Amino acid sequence: MKLLVINPNISHDVTRLIEDEARRSARPGSILTMATAPFGVAYIETRAEAQIGGYAAMQIAAEQHDQHDAVIVAAFGDPGLPALREMLPIPVAGMTESALVCACQQGSRFSVIAISQRIQSWYRETIASYGFSERLASIRALDDPLAHIGRVQQDQGDRLVTLAERAVQDDGADVLILAGAPLAGLARSVSHRLPVPALDGVTCAMHQAQAMVDLAPHTPRGGSYSPPPAKDCQGLGEALSALVGRQPLAAQRA
Amino acid sequence: MKLLVINPNISHDVTRLIEDEARRSARPGSILTMATAPFGVAYIETRAEAQIGGYAAMQIAAEQHDQHDAVIVAAFGDPGLPALREMLPIPVAGMTESALVCACQQGSRFSVIAISQRIQSWYRETIASYGFSERLASIRALDDPLAHIGRVQQDQGDRLVTLAERAVQDDGADVLILAGAPLAGLARSVSHRLPVPALDGVTCAMHQAQAMVDLAPHTPRGGSYSPPPAKDCQGLGEALSALVGRQPLAAQRA
Amino acid sequence: MKLLVINPNISHDVTRLIEDEARRSARPGSILTMATAPFGVAYIETRAEAQIGGYAAMQIAAEQHDQHDAVIVAAFGDPGLPALREMLPIPVAGMTESALVCACQQGSRFSVIAISQRIQSWYRETIASYGFSERLASIRALDDPLAHIGRVQQDQGDRLVTLAERAVQDDGADVLILAGAPLAGLARSVSHRLPVPALDGVTCAMHQAQAMVDLAPHTPRGGSYSPPPAKDCQGLGEALSALVGRQPLAAQRA
Amino acid sequence: MKLLVINPNISHDVTRLIEDEARRSARPGSILTMATAPFGVAYIETRAEAQIGGYAAMQIAAEQHDQHDAVIVAAFGDPGLPALREMLPIPVAGMTESALVCACQQGSRFSVIAISQRIQSWYRETIASYGFSERLASIRALDDPLAHIGRVQQDQGDRLVTLAERAVQDDGADVLILAGAPLAGLARSVSHRLPVPALDGVTCAMHQAQAMVDLAPHTPRGGSYSPPPAKDCQGLGEALSALVGRQPLAAQRA
Amino acid sequence: MKLLVINPNISHDVTRLIEDEARRSARPGSILTMATAPFGVAYIETRAEAQIGGYAAMQIAAEQHDQHDAVIVAAFGDPGLPALREMLPIPVAGMTESALVCACQQGSRFSVIAISQRIQSWYRETIASYGFSERLASIRALDDPLAHIGRVQQDQGDRLVTLAERAVQDDGADVLILAGAPLAGLARSVSHRLPVPALDGVTCAMHQAQAMVDLAPHTPRGGSYSPPPAKDCQGLGEALSALVGRQPLAAQRA
Amino acid sequence: MKLLVINPNISHDVTRLIEDEARRSARPGSILTMATAPFGVAYIETRAEAQIGGYAAMQIAAEQHDQHDAVIVAAFGDPGLPALREMLPIPVAGMTESALVCACQQGSRFSVIAISQRIQSWYRETIASYGFSERLASIRALDDPLAHIGRVQQDQGDRLVTLAERAVQDDGADVLILAGAPLAGLARSVSHRLPVPALDGVTCAMHQAQAMVDLAPHTPRGGSYSPPPAKDCQGLGEALSALVGRQPLAAQRA
Repeated sequence: MKLLVINPNISHDVTRLIEDEARRSARPGSILTMATAPFGVAYIETRAEAQIGGYAAMQIAAEQHDQHDAVIVAAFGDPGLPALREMLPIPVAGMTESALVCACQQGSRFSVIAISQRIQSWYRETIASYGFSERLASIRALDDPLAHIGRVQQDQGDRLVTLAERAVQDDGADVLILAGAPLAGLARSVSHRLPVPALDGVTCAMHQAQAMVDLAPHTPRGGSYSPPPAKDCQGLGEALSALVGRQPLAAQRA
Repeated sequence: MKLLVINPNISHDVTRLIEDEARRSARPGSILTMATAPFGVAYIETRAEAQIGGYAAMQIAAEQHDQHDAVIVAAFGDPGLPALREMLPIPVAGMTESALVCACQQGSRFSVIAISQRIQSWYRETIASYGFSERLASIRALDDPLAHIGRVQQDQGDRLVTLAERAVQDDGADVLILAGAPLAGLARSVSHRLPVPALDGVTCAMHQAQAMVDLAPHTPRGGSYSPPPAKDCQGLGEALSALVGRQPLAAQRA
Repeated sequence: MKLLVINPNISHDVTRLIEDEARRSARPGSILTMATAPFGVAYIETRAEAQIGGYAAMQIAAEQHDQHDAVIVAAFGDPGLPALREMLPIPVAGMTESALVCACQQGSRFSVIAISQRIQSWYRETIASYGFSERLASIRALDDPLAHIGRVQQDQGDRLVTLAERAVQDDGADVLILAGAPLAGLARSVSHRLPVPALDGVTCAMHQAQAMVDLAPHTPRGGSYSPPPAKDCQGLGEALSALVGRQPLAAQRA
Repeated sequence: MKLLVINPNISHDVTRLIEDEARRSARPGSILTMATAPFGVAYIETRAEAQIGGYAAMQIAAEQHDQHDAVIVAAFGDPGLPALREMLPIPVAGMTESALVCACQQGSRFSVIAISQRIQSWYRETIASYGFSERLASIRALDDPLAHIGRVQQDQGDRLVTLAERAVQDDGADVLILAGAPLAGLARSVSHRLPVPALDGVTCAMHQAQAMVDLAPHTPRGGSYSPPPAKDCQGLGEALSALVGRQPLAAQRA
Repeated sequence: MKLLVINPNISHDVTRLIEDEARRSARPGSILTMATAPFGVAYIETRAEAQIGGYAAMQIAAEQHDQHDAVIVAAFGDPGLPALREMLPIPVAGMTESALVCACQQGSRFSVIAISQRIQSWYRETIASYGFSERLASIRALDDPLAHIGRVQQDQGDRLVTLAERAVQDDGADVLILAGAPLAGLARSVSHRLPVPALDGVTCAMHQAQAMVDLAPHTPRGGSYSPPPAKDCQGLGEALSALVGRQPLAAQRA
Repeated sequence: MKLLVINPNISHDVTRLIEDEARRSARPGSILTMATAPFGVAYIETRAEAQIGGYAAMQIAAEQHDQHDAVIVAAFGDPGLPALREMLPIPVAGMTESALVCACQQGSRFSVIAISQRIQSWYRETIASYGFSERLASIRALDDPLAHIGRVQQDQGDRLVTLAERAVQDDGADVLILAGAPLAGLARSVSHRLPVPALDGVTCAMHQAQAMVDLAPHTPRGGSYSPPPAKDCQGLGEALSALVGRQPLAAQRA
């Protein structure tokens, strides 16, 4: 199967991190296409940045989903995930959602370990939007600004492990989610130091995406995830227009 | 005070409807600037369309908020509202949020009357994201596809009133919200026919925006609505880049 | 417009604090009538005191609402608010409810800073009764008994600021509500020292009450906030009887 | 043990209904004192009437609780219950709360059968305030205005049974609560006609009150149900002042 | 009345503790039958142990409920309670559920004091399954492994009291539940040292069970607690088979 | 990988249905071991039957999990799932949990189509115990008693499809879960007739179990899913004793 992995941010460093980790979870025969947002920010910490990244993911998905079997939105917080799921005829997985569903199958409550204080609100609201708040034991985050987003694991690995241990000891976490694409691979490299299973969003998204291709759900004709009703649109580019709209009457006539 | 009213969609007809209704709620001295999205769809029914409209609203807000005292996002469902609120130094009101807070002050539970079946899920999720689900008595919506988005009040007025009456009688609504920018003005024109107060998102947003300007909250230095930490960005346009990012190092050096 | 501001407690000192702050938020042409409860307690910390204050507010409102355009219940916790809203033909605002709806439009989560440990439960239950618990980051309160209810701002101002800072730093508050009529004016005087917007219940209630008069909702004929069905009553005084009851048959015949 | 049963309304007819039913659940040696509100309304359907009835219950309880072992608030909706529980040194039971806790021990979900459409909102909000909403299957109510509050069982018995049957069949109720003091005794007289256990608030309150006397909880010195901190008060009458306040300084000096 | 008290565990020491405490709450004429699980574990800390204990309680209840008026499941966490309530024609009380309903009638929020860290998750999930999570202030538990389950009160009494005090002071508990059958009697012996009422699950279950016998609910013919529909079964023993199944056709024919 | 599929019921017919459907989702190299409960009932509709089936599943899992890579509990409602997950050193999947997490990745809200009215409460409580109630649009169930549990698809297929269509149209389901092991295969055979994706618990459990083996979580040393602390036990059989207990001291000495 062919999987389109979208980094909704402009950081090619992070795309490489994601790819390295994703390849470890690709089954024989699964082929990855990596895509990096052509516009946006380096990484997403806020609702504003997620709004941008979500739109960038829509553009990439519209242009490149063809000839793929599933799409992965590879930023924690899943920017644009519901939008992509509505408009694409193939399954879409997100790093957060996938990590949450894997976590729910390994324990009652999970904690999220995050790379910045600011990012917590966006994560909390994403988790709430999925209806998983009851199972969230805590979010714990690094205090200091990141020196370099591509080196956070090397620079802050020990502190992230300490936060994870406190989440188990003090917050009652049964499972840990090491969150954020910049942490791709950390769960694997430190899991032996942690008392409970530690999950990586990229890995979980790979497994869930492949499982959804196996499930082969058909594109809905009803419900709120059937394709958006065609309507006038402009300025969206050809690929996105083809999925969510029709050209305005004037344009159509022209 | 000066208010920037953003229609996150491309429909100038609907912008005119919004303006007509908004002017009725402008206090003496309040001046409106109307803006219509340069790209996007005719009106928003889905998560995908909201993702687009939210990004369009960010672009407009970034470019035009200067020299205004507050911004109104004038589509029900409030596309981009949290993003705008994070990045702008002035208050931001949304049609849905404003209607909800006005409704909460007039009764215990409210119903939303909507223009299409499909639109209900997006509305429901927006209301849930604000934590107001407990107070939602029901959403009731027209069954048939809209012939023309700018004439829905004339074409479907009586059916909308019937839906509203059933929401009071059968669902226990204390307040009605006639939802969607295309219904701007309907609450005013039919309120005498309805047994409980009926609210219009545009009107509520005007009153709440002006009240927030009166409150004059300062821009936060902390919390999750302080300005997004500056980070590398590209392709966002000058105005938006100035608010959410800094140019990538390469670009900066160039 | 004419606003009736009811202090549901017997403390004329606090009524003066409320009036001073309220006048700052009165628009040109808005006229205030201040009323102090003729019976009750000095300030409300408990459910029992709120039950008393709510009944006192009903008596005052019944007697004085005539020739006013809106009523404000000026004690945090909003004693009697739902009762007044049901029985009066004009809008009614409460300090807590108004502060909550203003806070919700400035951030995702808010904290309440309160004047005594004991008062927290009543506040928490009031906020829960409005369905806003999800957005409450924390309640933090002074530890020591108040020496004088009219001088709490002078005596405890710095400690209240410290509590507010901790609510932002440790509890994740995006907005602060400095709660209780005895703190009227504090938000204004200390807001420059606080990292996030700080709200004052009196000010918020003034803005929301004036906005509701602008909205001009009609008195409902249906729903659960239409006037209480007339029924036998006794001992309620003339004004209240006229709103919630009819004299018992015997009395009517006499 | 001696139980003080307070009808927070002025209807002596209903007090007699309550007494008849309560006596059936009095254990040998349990003695009842019946009290009827000296002021208020005939029966409570609204938040406004509950605010009045709660204050009346406080007055009666303050004056008469002495030499009793427990108090029962005998109106469905439990007007004043939290207030009484805070201020009295003896256990206090309420018809709604008692029925809910008995229902929870007999099934997963319960329905409430009520005497008027209007009364539903107040019941729903009372149940929510106890945190029992998840277990509420439905509230079903008579449609027509009551001809005589003291004869509702005779006049409407069959219709109440029909509502109860539909609650089991269509709403998934495991237990029925026939609500409202005017229905005292109905559960007993129709239970053989109903497919699931039917509860009567008076009976449940009697059993729970007697069980709480058996439990003999001590008066708390801490927590939010310890006696309200003494503070200035006026106009509350001698008995209530003694429980919730102290006379104002001026009065004390006089 | 005759009460069957089931210890779903194999520890006769704990059964004796339960019996000693239960006898203090037996009314004149109430007769206790004590039963100890013939298979299972010493005490229940986990979901796995509760699954075992619940099945053991079913076996005992099936065999011995005859000629009793009510059953008490005497392990905190109520293993098997819903199962027993479905299949038995008499009322069934559980230690946790009974303590919760008693606590709810004495305050707004309660804390649970527990004998081990591990046990907290099972308790938390039990309380959530009843829909009481909103009223749970906290669970606090002993840190160290228990030396002897029958001597935990003597060995750890002071530490349990300290945990209880912190629950009131720091977590806002109005009522304390000293949880677990091995703590039977502790609430009574230390209540004078605690600032708020302290409840014992055994005592509460005794009072609630006797109250339910007084209520005399009939066995439901409908709803989800009517007897399980008869179906093929095997290997359950004669008594349990008679309640939940019928012998497989083959067995019936044989 | 080797998967142990446990039917917690005694019906070999249903085990065959499960096996047929499970084989279709086995990846090349995945090997299934089927197990049928040696004691219990024909199929599970009630909490009582689930308590039995959960204990049976524990027994089977204890005896046979060795030399497998994961376990599947193959009854909708997941009897014993948390218990197995605590005590086994390998991943455990359940039909309900797996279907829920697959459904959540294909839409916002799902409906469950069930084989009997009675079974709904148990399903509803299972879903609630996972914290997924917010996303449950409805449960719809067949009205009539089943003639033969192994032929329900043939006998009732069209009625099940009708229920499914109504769940989409009237309840707002984005995804359908055709629930219960006796419906294994139905989703596949009727999905072309349904407007939204239809899921089968067996298939979902197969995919999730295999994904969890891929994830290879280590056995926790902490948190509430680490192995139950060893304690005295008796009568559990050798295999289960080895997992949850230690022999009582007396037995150990003997």
